[in-house]
Amino acid sequence: METNYTQLKTRLIEVNDIQAAAGLLHWDQSTYMPPGGAAARARQSATLRRLAHEKFTDPAIGKLLDDLIPYQQSLDYSSDEASLIRLTRRQYERAIKIPSEFLAEVATHTSESFQVWTEARPANDFERVRPYLEKTLEYSRQSANFFPGYDHIADPLIEPREYGMKAVDVKRVFAELREQLVPIASAITSQSPADDSCLHKIYPEEKQLAFGLDVATRFGYDLNRGRSDKTHHPFMTKFSLGDVRITTRSKEDSLGEAMFCTMHETGHALYEQGIRGDFEGTPLARGTSAGVHESQSRLWENIVGRSKGFWKCFYPQLQQIFPNQLNDVSLDTFHRAINKVERSLIRTEADEVTYNLHVMLRFDFELALLEGEMEIKDLPKAWRERFESDFGIVPPDDKDGVLQDVHWYYNLIGGGFQGYTLGNILGAQFYSTALETHPEIPNEIENGEFQTLHNWLIENVYQHGSKFTAPEIIERATGKSMTIEPYMKYLRTKYGELYSLD
Amino acid sequence: METNYTQLKTRLIEVNDIQAAAGLLHWDQSTYMPPGGAAARARQSATLRRLAHEKFTDPAIGKLLDDLIPYQQSLDYSSDEASLIRLTRRQYERAIKIPSEFLAEVATHTSESFQVWTEARPANDFERVRPYLEKTLEYSRQSANFFPGYDHIADPLIEPREYGMKAVDVKRVFAELREQLVPIASAITSQSPADDSCLHKIYPEEKQLAFGLDVATRFGYDLNRGRSDKTHHPFMTKFSLGDVRITTRSKEDSLGEAMFCTMHETGHALYEQGIRGDFEGTPLARGTSAGVHESQSRLWENIVGRSKGFWKCFYPQLQQIFPNQLNDVSLDTFHRAINKVERSLIRTEADEVTYNLHVMLRFDFELALLEGEMEIKDLPKAWRERFESDFGIVPPDDKDGVLQDVHWYYNLIGGGFQGYTLGNILGAQFYSTALETHPEIPNEIENGEFQTLHNWLIENVYQHGSKFTAPEIIERATGKSMTIEPYMKYLRTKYGELYSLD
Repeated sequence: METNYTQLKTRLIEVNDIQAAAGLLHWDQSTYMPPGGAAARARQSATLRRLAHEKFTDPAIGKLLDDLIPYQQSLDYSSDEASLIRLTRRQYERAIKIPSEFLAEVATHTSESFQVWTEARPANDFERVRPYLEKTLEYSRQSANFFPGYDHIADPLIEPREYGMKAVDVKRVFAELREQLVPIASAITSQSPADDSCLHKIYPEEKQLAFGLDVATRFGYDLNRGRSDKTHHPFMTKFSLGDVRITTRSKEDSLGEAMFCTMHETGHALYEQGIRGDFEGTPLARGTSAGVHESQSRLWENIVGRSKGFWKCFYPQLQQIFPNQLNDVSLDTFHRAINKVERSLIRTEADEVTYNLHVMLRFDFELALLEGEMEIKDLPKAWRERFESDFGIVPPDDKDGVLQDVHWYYNLIGGGFQGYTLGNILGAQFYSTALETHPEIPNEIENGEFQTLHNWLIENVYQHGSKFTAPEIIERATGKSMTIEPYMKYLRTKYGELYSLD
Repeated sequence: METNYTQLKTRLIEVNDIQAAAGLLHWDQSTYMPPGGAAARARQSATLRRLAHEKFTDPAIGKLLDDLIPYQQSLDYSSDEASLIRLTRRQYERAIKIPSEFLAEVATHTSESFQVWTEARPANDFERVRPYLEKTLEYSRQSANFFPGYDHIADPLIEPREYGMKAVDVKRVFAELREQLVPIASAITSQSPADDSCLHKIYPEEKQLAFGLDVATRFGYDLNRGRSDKTHHPFMTKFSLGDVRITTRSKEDSLGEAMFCTMHETGHALYEQGIRGDFEGTPLARGTSAGVHESQSRLWENIVGRSKGFWKCFYPQLQQIFPNQLNDVSLDTFHRAINKVERSLIRTEADEVTYNLHVMLRFDFELALLEGEMEIKDLPKAWRERFESDFGIVPPDDKDGVLQDVHWYYNLIGGGFQGYTLGNILGAQFYSTALETHPEIPNEIENGEFQTLHNWLIENVYQHGSKFTAPEIIERATGKSMTIEPYMKYLRTKYGELYSLD
């Protein structure tokens, strides 16, 4: 006789398999699908998403979870079995509160909204997306209201990405960060910016991509269980623990593009590839939160990939690949170029220091919109005002202002942005803890070796997948709850060397 | 209120979407999947196939079909609605007779069997696959016996590929063909074979692939709704009518490989791309039988692609691409080389004339095995004997004898081979009919134009998808039932010019 636990696992793997197929439909659409496939592909994706939701919210899963209560109580909290049951119950109880029809309605709306945005952004036409955005805000509120009893209306929207954090927690940590960050950003941006013209010569794309992938495998990305392709928007996706793919993009006149995109997505991929193999097919087999996931992309892209030590090893190699472009560029010049800090309009192109200010602006606006303190129609003006006060520049148009991010136009409002800054904070916290145990890590990086760092991350973060919540993982790995100190120390040290601070 | 008919269609589209996703899982596995993805991919494919079967055999579909009887009776036989109901009933009644557990068991068995074959073939070790093949034969008989009341035990296995044909029909047409084919094959193979050394110089693969794809688009393959990739075994696959893909392979030292593989798969793809767009997502939106499908791959590959007229236009272009290799090779020499006839061991590499003898050998053996007239253990010896009597040569080993085809090692025995020869016969029958109405077609081909032929095929064959059965399509398109005459006439004319016959 199959036990209840085995039955639960079998059902979860079935849901996982449908989701994996839906994931492949998306990957294929972004990489190789001919344009004629688009209409049917949208329908097929919707069918699979619906099926996965139906299968996961099957009352039989609720029954199994109920029957498993005594078993779960007999187990250690940190056993695999108890963790899987705990996580499944959490996700199940959330899923059954959202009606399938609502999900389908939102999916149709956001897909239309996305379509309109792709035309409205280049046309700098906020008015065209406004009614869609208003509807999206309505859906976002509705979605939150499936979970009555919240402290803040954003809490139910933040929950699935950052379980264990509420709006008030994010606000607190953002306020603390902002207070320390703004003076640093001002100190730097009042100086003349680094010269990054060396990055904007002509760099053949194939060579850029090959170099990026070489770095990825040196970090520890296993191409036997992964691959890299080109897409318009880079992403990481996983079909199983044995198949964790990244995508990247390149620009011939921008050496940083492919390189740092690849490192960023590789960080996400290392996390997924590092999960324990026996979790395969279950909800345990994925990163535990958006913030922890982003901590890994930021750690590998920024803390490692934009460090002087890393380039001591890799810059000579890069010069060999691009001798005409780089032979008369010193390591110092190159390092300053890839760490140029400036007041810029676009979040995704922002540097490590100012990036968080972009995120906070969006997060604050999301809360205000959800609270009803701000209306959609006020967004463009509010954006310009806040941008001017935070960055000292006014966006010349909505295109590179309120229209710049895809998030609100293909998803709900609320919960989509804070993970980026949480990732910056956590990346530094994990890294500094790894260094306490392994002070040799920076030396190894200078020699192009990453195994000690990679192993520490596997051991303390990756392997557990979603077995523990983000707060639990942070506590277990670093002995503390989330703190901005290591991040601020990292920024002060790094940028103190590149610019004069104070 | 949704009508029963709309409800039926909605359910069929859901099944189709799951099947399309399963198809993509397979395409991806053959093209880009990293090796580490294999284990989970097998599980994911099985999950999706099972889901599609469960959804299609849902009693609600049976109920809808029953409720639709009066509606169907009120419609013309050849209306779209009546055709969809008719086809669905046929497929539904077949599907519900096969238990899900049996399908799962067979899937597990054939996947193991395939794995063993991939090792046993290079090792020339029939004994290793024998027990698997015995089990496969047992499953094949069991599968047939879900449909009691057949005339021949192979009939239920042939049915899903060649609806409207029974073993006795195939035997009759094969006997007729064999009688006329053997003397021609003997007359040709007793002469010294054509010199095809010009095909076996070094031809850079990228250029081969580009030329193949160029020909494909000239035939009418729409890359807006398709694409070509490299795989070990070439195939055509479809995810929707807007996304019909082909794969091909190439060998640096064999100019024919990529070129004719691409033309072959393009023939399949033209069929699927030519189906009426409003059939999208329903069971009507696919080719009607294996034989008619193969008629299109063979027509475009052989009747068009190996014709003198075609190369009058394309050979100068090929010479421009490969001047060093081909400038001193005349069109006649080249044309003889690509139509070389010889007694060879391998079916997939056989020429147009001897190919059918390979098929007949396998078909006869399948019947004998299913009938119990032959045992699996007798296969290697029987193969050698029959091969010697049909081809005048004895296979030196089992590797290139009974172990050569994948079919019996990844599928049931019965029903997998006859379509190739039916395709040869039907390709010629369709082509000769098209020429009766449009005698200008050969001239157009000499000018690199294929639209009249392509349009005739769309009009008379492709657009209907599975709306009519193969016998119906043949009758409608050619005014006759299947006949070998056009094919024999085609072979006699073509090879009479290349070799002396009589």
